[in-house]
Amino acid sequence: AMPYENLDHPGASGGSSNTGEPSMKMFTIWVLIAQAVGLLAVILTAVWMSVYHGGFSWVPERVFNFHPLFMVIGLVFLYADGILVYRVFRSVKKFRVKVIHASLHILALIFAIVGLKAVFDSHNLSKPPKPNMWSLHSWLGLTCVLLFCLQWVGGLIHFLLPQTPQSYRKMYLPIHQHWGVILFCMTTVTAITGITEKNAFHDDASKLPAWEKLSNTLGFVLGIFCILVVYIVRRAEYQRVEPPAEPDEEMNLQQPTDEEKTG
Amino acid sequence: AMPYENLDHPGASGGSSNTGEPSMKMFTIWVLIAQAVGLLAVILTAVWMSVYHGGFSWVPERVFNFHPLFMVIGLVFLYADGILVYRVFRSVKKFRVKVIHASLHILALIFAIVGLKAVFDSHNLSKPPKPNMWSLHSWLGLTCVLLFCLQWVGGLIHFLLPQTPQSYRKMYLPIHQHWGVILFCMTTVTAITGITEKNAFHDDASKLPAWEKLSNTLGFVLGIFCILVVYIVRRAEYQRVEPPAEPDEEMNLQQPTDEEKTG
Repeated sequence: AMPYENLDHPGASGGSSNTGEPSMKMFTIWVLIAQAVGLLAVILTAVWMSVYHGGFSWVPERVFNFHPLFMVIGLVFLYADGILVYRVFRSVKKFRVKVIHASLHILALIFAIVGLKAVFDSHNLSKPPKPNMWSLHSWLGLTCVLLFCLQWVGGLIHFLLPQTPQSYRKMYLPIHQHWGVILFCMTTVTAITGITEKNAFHDDASKLPAWEKLSNTLGFVLGIFCILVVYIVRRAEYQRVEPPAEPDEEMNLQQPTDEEKTG
Repeated sequence: AMPYENLDHPGASGGSSNTGEPSMKMFTIWVLIAQAVGLLAVILTAVWMSVYHGGFSWVPERVFNFHPLFMVIGLVFLYADGILVYRVFRSVKKFRVKVIHASLHILALIFAIVGLKAVFDSHNLSKPPKPNMWSLHSWLGLTCVLLFCLQWVGGLIHFLLPQTPQSYRKMYLPIHQHWGVILFCMTTVTAITGITEKNAFHDDASKLPAWEKLSNTLGFVLGIFCILVVYIVRRAEYQRVEPPAEPDEEMNLQQPTDEEKTG
């Protein structure tokens, strides 16, 4: 799935797997491990909701079950993969990677909005209706979604609009990068608090229920995924090295390159 | 409270506040903000437990209340300050800072152990007894305490025992630094899940109770504290620059200096 592999850049060292350096071989392994752990998180969430909480249907009793699944797919898995594209598509032209990055994050936001709608519906359609926005999980969650929107619009304005002056792009880039990673950690933490909240009710069980063992394990898997993704993103050797400036065909004008050094 | 301020180092640039560089002035401001936010977290925890949950006493009904307070003091506030000493005591001899670092973290561990005893007692002395180690919060928490002990012993062996070869110290330093910061984030996340768990029970309130507003706010304060501390620790300009090697009087032998470049 690397349709944008660009062979016109002799300066860029090809795909991550075909460089001779050991650190780049480890890069591929870390990315594959992260993908496996992220997919495991999505699968465990789906199993938790389908096997132990009645499965997926947009009816008052079960609409909640879409909430954890769509949030984990959107604001954990797709969010992370949207960040990692800059590391994975090392030899693809920057503008194309930007478009993939922005697209994955719009997709993440769509999942998040459906996931939010699911939890509000599950509260509002319940008899009697349950209050919204009481818990720390809900406060953290809404904060994350709002910051995610801000971050997305900030990225669009600074890095995709051709009119934005180079100096603004350069100033905003480290802010976008740092807050992107912090916000990703925040969405993972929010997911973990969601598990804690969902599991707080036991109906007088005499031993630890299977669904709680499964979802506690999911909490650890989410934490490990977050650590892996932050490690891959922050490690200096894995950062994208930009080939010399070149015209960007998509926009028919010289793309800024200053902000590309570390993006 | 800087009894170890060392004026014998003309090469080290004195306290953080008396250097002329603007980034170092911001350093002092960030550290003060972090201290204020950390203390606010401790105070909010104490108010939450004393005003809204009956205060502090080692009796079955109220012994739990020590748990959040002692955990926040130990594994959030003192843990962070133990990390920050390397940044704050810039001109103090490395060996002395190591001793302060290790001492603060032993103190943090003592608070954590008393905090753990409080929650186990609150479960075991309850009638009927409540099960231990069921929740994701408890799993994360015990993992954190065990990793914290490992990290402390690893630090002792590598950096305080004079017999440890220089090559081992050098190899272990980045591991100790990175896992120290990751583990600090994990303890903060665990504290946030503890709030979520404690607040999951509402007794049919008709509006959001004051104690939940307060403790949700505490969750945000803990998150902001974590972000501030990680920012201060990870920012390159704020890292300690070691003066040229010198004999370490405390140990009457030449202290290793290679690992001191970034510690």
